[in-house]
Amino acid sequence: MSEAPLSTQPSADGGSPELLHELEADRIESILDALHEGQEARVRGLVIPLHAADIADILERLSATDRERLIDVVGRHLPPDVLSELDETVREEIIERLGTKEVAAVVAELDSDDAVQVIEELDESERREILEAMPDADRALIEEALTFPEDSAGRLMQREVVTVASYWTVGQTIDFLRQSADEDADRLPATFYDIIVVDAMFRPVGTIPLSRLLRSRRQVGVADIMSTDMHVIPATMDQEDVAFLFRQRDLVSAPVVNESGRLVGEITIDDVVDVMQEEHEEDIMLLGGVQEDDFYSAALQTVRQRFKWLAVNLFTASLGAMVISQFSDSIAQVVALAVLMPIVASMGGNAGTQTLTVTVRALATKELTPTNALRLIGKETLVGGLNGMLLAVLVGVVAWLWSGNLSIGLAIAMAMVANLVIAGLAGITIPLALESMGADPAVASSVFLTAVTDVIGFSTFLGLATLIVL
Amino acid sequence: MSEAPLSTQPSADGGSPELLHELEADRIESILDALHEGQEARVRGLVIPLHAADIADILERLSATDRERLIDVVGRHLPPDVLSELDETVREEIIERLGTKEVAAVVAELDSDDAVQVIEELDESERREILEAMPDADRALIEEALTFPEDSAGRLMQREVVTVASYWTVGQTIDFLRQSADEDADRLPATFYDIIVVDAMFRPVGTIPLSRLLRSRRQVGVADIMSTDMHVIPATMDQEDVAFLFRQRDLVSAPVVNESGRLVGEITIDDVVDVMQEEHEEDIMLLGGVQEDDFYSAALQTVRQRFKWLAVNLFTASLGAMVISQFSDSIAQVVALAVLMPIVASMGGNAGTQTLTVTVRALATKELTPTNALRLIGKETLVGGLNGMLLAVLVGVVAWLWSGNLSIGLAIAMAMVANLVIAGLAGITIPLALESMGADPAVASSVFLTAVTDVIGFSTFLGLATLIVL
Repeated sequence: MSEAPLSTQPSADGGSPELLHELEADRIESILDALHEGQEARVRGLVIPLHAADIADILERLSATDRERLIDVVGRHLPPDVLSELDETVREEIIERLGTKEVAAVVAELDSDDAVQVIEELDESERREILEAMPDADRALIEEALTFPEDSAGRLMQREVVTVASYWTVGQTIDFLRQSADEDADRLPATFYDIIVVDAMFRPVGTIPLSRLLRSRRQVGVADIMSTDMHVIPATMDQEDVAFLFRQRDLVSAPVVNESGRLVGEITIDDVVDVMQEEHEEDIMLLGGVQEDDFYSAALQTVRQRFKWLAVNLFTASLGAMVISQFSDSIAQVVALAVLMPIVASMGGNAGTQTLTVTVRALATKELTPTNALRLIGKETLVGGLNGMLLAVLVGVVAWLWSGNLSIGLAIAMAMVANLVIAGLAGITIPLALESMGADPAVASSVFLTAVTDVIGFSTFLGLATLIVL
Repeated sequence: MSEAPLSTQPSADGGSPELLHELEADRIESILDALHEGQEARVRGLVIPLHAADIADILERLSATDRERLIDVVGRHLPPDVLSELDETVREEIIERLGTKEVAAVVAELDSDDAVQVIEELDESERREILEAMPDADRALIEEALTFPEDSAGRLMQREVVTVASYWTVGQTIDFLRQSADEDADRLPATFYDIIVVDAMFRPVGTIPLSRLLRSRRQVGVADIMSTDMHVIPATMDQEDVAFLFRQRDLVSAPVVNESGRLVGEITIDDVVDVMQEEHEEDIMLLGGVQEDDFYSAALQTVRQRFKWLAVNLFTASLGAMVISQFSDSIAQVVALAVLMPIVASMGGNAGTQTLTVTVRALATKELTPTNALRLIGKETLVGGLNGMLLAVLVGVVAWLWSGNLSIGLAIAMAMVANLVIAGLAGITIPLALESMGADPAVASSVFLTAVTDVIGFSTFLGLATLIVL
């Protein structure tokens, strides 16, 4: 257990998360101490033996200056995998600090899928520089992968696959594996979970999970034990669809083919887990109005990124203000309206956000489809109406008692129902409309929604009040 | 490829998601047609050959009535895995419709981890009924798993594992696997990715990935090729931590031990992928103020669940209204204040939500830790302040020009800066405080945040305006 500070001893304490992270906090403290005292050898001794994922975590957690200092000390000794484990923003910083030659050497040591992941994030000139500094064979593999579209299966796959011909036997396959292990370990992936059976044109015709191979006798033909109902992934398939397929079918790996059906690589579950994580991150961040890499951006960059979103929201807030200004006279006469109006708008916004969250999520998981869209629009509108009525009674009575004016109670009650019905309807139709126009419903939905619930909330309440109160 | 409507042919079209889902929509149409016309044999012919995950999807997408009808027609012919693939709310409905005996028979056919997943959701009496109707051996396994806490590794693991003694050779291991395949296939898991080496006390001492086993010669001892730096998971570890460990270490499976360090099962990546999906679902839903299973709840249940959240929000909205009512006199004199005040509150809410989203996410992924919390609180406050100043200039000038009153412009500008600084600060400290008190920061953070930004927004703007405008 020496390599892994995160590994958990088989103990009775249930491996609480605090325990894991206290350990890490301690280690980071020691590293920082050593770094600040200039004890370079000690820093290396503390960092280098760690698992690549942990080194990446530590780098991410440091401030930009400490990070640079640490890279200067441990740079060339870092395990190659650290680069592929890093968050993009931090990775860029580190690549810049390491320099082209160092990065090229590191990338050449990575598995083809991880190398592509690192290189695709670089800008054109950096990319060319690093590719040119790499061995020819590695460069060719990476350049080919880069011909596939961004976020496609072709970028995600590893090129190293284990293939056998369909006329082979289990015995031949095992002998082949043992021999390649001795001769050229580089040609096989470090770990693999199944063997792909290919025809003479190198098209996949079946897969054999290793556990099935191991349980079969030597003389059995691979064609007799292979699964032909495998899931073959076109290299151009979007990574989001790849993740969906893996999750839906509990896959651990799947062959990737080019447009002529020829096997070009294999996608394994670890890469898919990263994609799932990335897609989750994107969903939740976009809904909150922030960029995916916000957490690791420097303050000024964060300001710039978030300001865009705030500016758009300022526009919708101004729409609300414009509606209110139309009713200035009414407010001047009955100031209670100014006190109560934000409640109507706010409850509409909250109810709409509930519907919006469920809808965006259900679209992402493909649970909301044309088959059930109409039924769900009905459900959301109904839910909005029913909650609107409950709130209407509550708020109406309180507003009446507080203001001593029954008409104000009636106006806010009616406005509440109207705004919550609209909120439910808008909360599901806005993301549906954006999705059908090919836009990401998580990005823009909440701006449109708030615009709707603000405008409807203010105008119905102030309008009704003007009609029945004054 | 006959079993799987979602499987993608190796074609040149890139397997677009539309294609996959059009196919499904068509199939659902046909099933519904057959169902409504009472053609039971045709319904079964359309549904039963599908992959369990797809049948589960179809069941989820139907209305409650159609779902019941479909269950009545296909019930006892359903592949057992359908039950474990279903969303919880839908699963409960279907279990009720199928009846205890049928469910017990289905559960007995599931892998132990899937069976536990189905049974743990049932209420006490249903659970007992179904367990009693099951074969003794299966029941014992499930009852033991149920002794572990909810959402723990012990509930997630499968009981079937492949173990060998450390003095065995590769050849013995392969012979053992071939023999068990012939004799009692039930004792081995259907698919497995590594072999666990145990000592005389049945404690794991190492693991061997199958690919390494296959590449080693028969006479090699398993002790010579096993990895001893494996990740042993205590059965009581929370599933969220299990998911974190799998992601961090790119694991495909890991041995689970009880409090005395004895091997009790194994967790595989497919279960972890489900946990990741579940945890993410929870995060995003809670942030939006909805329950995890909201999408499949019936309308009235949804109303009830969502109302709770709306009621809490009503309380915070009322806080804002109370602040406004303190300034009724000011508003009566300068109605422009009523027009502008929601802008200050709304921008504070938006900026705070940005910070909140990043913070909740970073807490969930354990990227935000005591080591960097202070630095990030500083960053968020700074970002809030800077964006506040940008917005202040913009809004201040517009408010001045629109109202023709420089003091109003100044008041809104100053209030904007104050509210955005507070929004940044509250957006990160509220979830941090909730987390440190052991609460889920995703649940309640946004209520507190809106309360803060509303109260600060209204009071600073109206307060400042009262001071300098009137």
